[in-house]
Amino acid sequence: EILAGIEMRFREGPLSGKRILVTSGPTHEPIDPVRYIANRSSGAQGRAIASALVGLGAHVVFVTGPAEVPPPEGVELIRVETARQMLAAVQSALPADAGVFVAAVADWRVASEADTKLKKSRDGLPVLEFAENPDILKTVSRMAEGRPGLVVGFAAETDNVLEHATAKRARKGCDWIVANDVSHATGIMGGSENAVTLITDEGAEGWPRMGKDEVARRLAHRIAAALAE
Amino acid sequence: EILAGIEMRFREGPLSGKRILVTSGPTHEPIDPVRYIANRSSGAQGRAIASALVGLGAHVVFVTGPAEVPPPEGVELIRVETARQMLAAVQSALPADAGVFVAAVADWRVASEADTKLKKSRDGLPVLEFAENPDILKTVSRMAEGRPGLVVGFAAETDNVLEHATAKRARKGCDWIVANDVSHATGIMGGSENAVTLITDEGAEGWPRMGKDEVARRLAHRIAAALAE
Repeated sequence: EILAGIEMRFREGPLSGKRILVTSGPTHEPIDPVRYIANRSSGAQGRAIASALVGLGAHVVFVTGPAEVPPPEGVELIRVETARQMLAAVQSALPADAGVFVAAVADWRVASEADTKLKKSRDGLPVLEFAENPDILKTVSRMAEGRPGLVVGFAAETDNVLEHATAKRARKGCDWIVANDVSHATGIMGGSENAVTLITDEGAEGWPRMGKDEVARRLAHRIAAALAE
Repeated sequence: EILAGIEMRFREGPLSGKRILVTSGPTHEPIDPVRYIANRSSGAQGRAIASALVGLGAHVVFVTGPAEVPPPEGVELIRVETARQMLAAVQSALPADAGVFVAAVADWRVASEADTKLKKSRDGLPVLEFAENPDILKTVSRMAEGRPGLVVGFAAETDNVLEHATAKRARKGCDWIVANDVSHATGIMGGSENAVTLITDEGAEGWPRMGKDEVARRLAHRIAAALAE
């Protein structure tokens, strides 16, 4: 732990001395002590981005839900389960020079969570009601004080990718959106490749389909260029 | 694949020539294309039991949901996701000399599953309604024809373990129940140890707390003795 810390401090590269927050993986929202709601995010893209940023010399705080892939090496690792825990971890990790929000955060949690019995419908089957989860990307993007200089969100869309992702950028208030098409036909969800569109205040830029590692390297270099300005 | 088959056929031990079905792991019930309901079963106990049965010479058909642990070696492997898929796999794997139902099968699935939009409540939040899943243990236990000679169920209980598990044995119609106490205090759920009570028509037999591998070996020997009678 101590050695890793020292190693981090002296890593050289275009992002040396920069502190970057990356969220990754799915969140799990408990229904009761044994059941939970999950999503199919593997954590592979978030891991790749964190690795690429570390490779350019950044100090990366990696906040991850229960991902399938192991966390990358050389990061400051914070493991969480729920969206609310992820927001708390993100807030405690700030300030940072940039934040890259790759995690697939559950929009809602079960309202009647915990050790209590589930509500039952007339036929004896449970009915689950939900409460809205905090919107981590929006919360950070709209911080009055201590907002990272560059906030990057991700948008997994199944149709009208460009339109939906552009609207999401405006709604959240983030600087960039990395949009990807996760419709069944692309086979991207859970796969090793990604076809993304980078949306900034200068417009939309479609990247060719490439490996998640290559998407990560390209994005890391763009972040380094933006932070050098 | 062919070599493994040959190897299986000639394996020697007290269960040589016996075909045993083992279910293991959690099931996942889809909410929509990206979200699903899961449970905290790791699949470790089912894997250990299948391995122990293979070690005694059995041909094991291993039907597993998306478990955290890898499947054991030397088994005929069938991977499933939902409870309905698991029932279909079990039915296609019968007849068998014994069935050991270790999987933590979801009691219910989302009624409005699939590509359709979720129903929304008045405040715009989704409401999930459920339909009952097939009861695999009960279905097999009560088969009029082709029922395995020995049907073993598992019961994960959080309180009144003996009472609840005994009632479960009667309700399902299985021969044995392996009951374990998964209340938070025991730390068993997700851990490497188990404290079980074996319930048969001769009564209940508490086993001391031991590793899941040891529980598996003991149970496998009991199954071998029962099938030799």
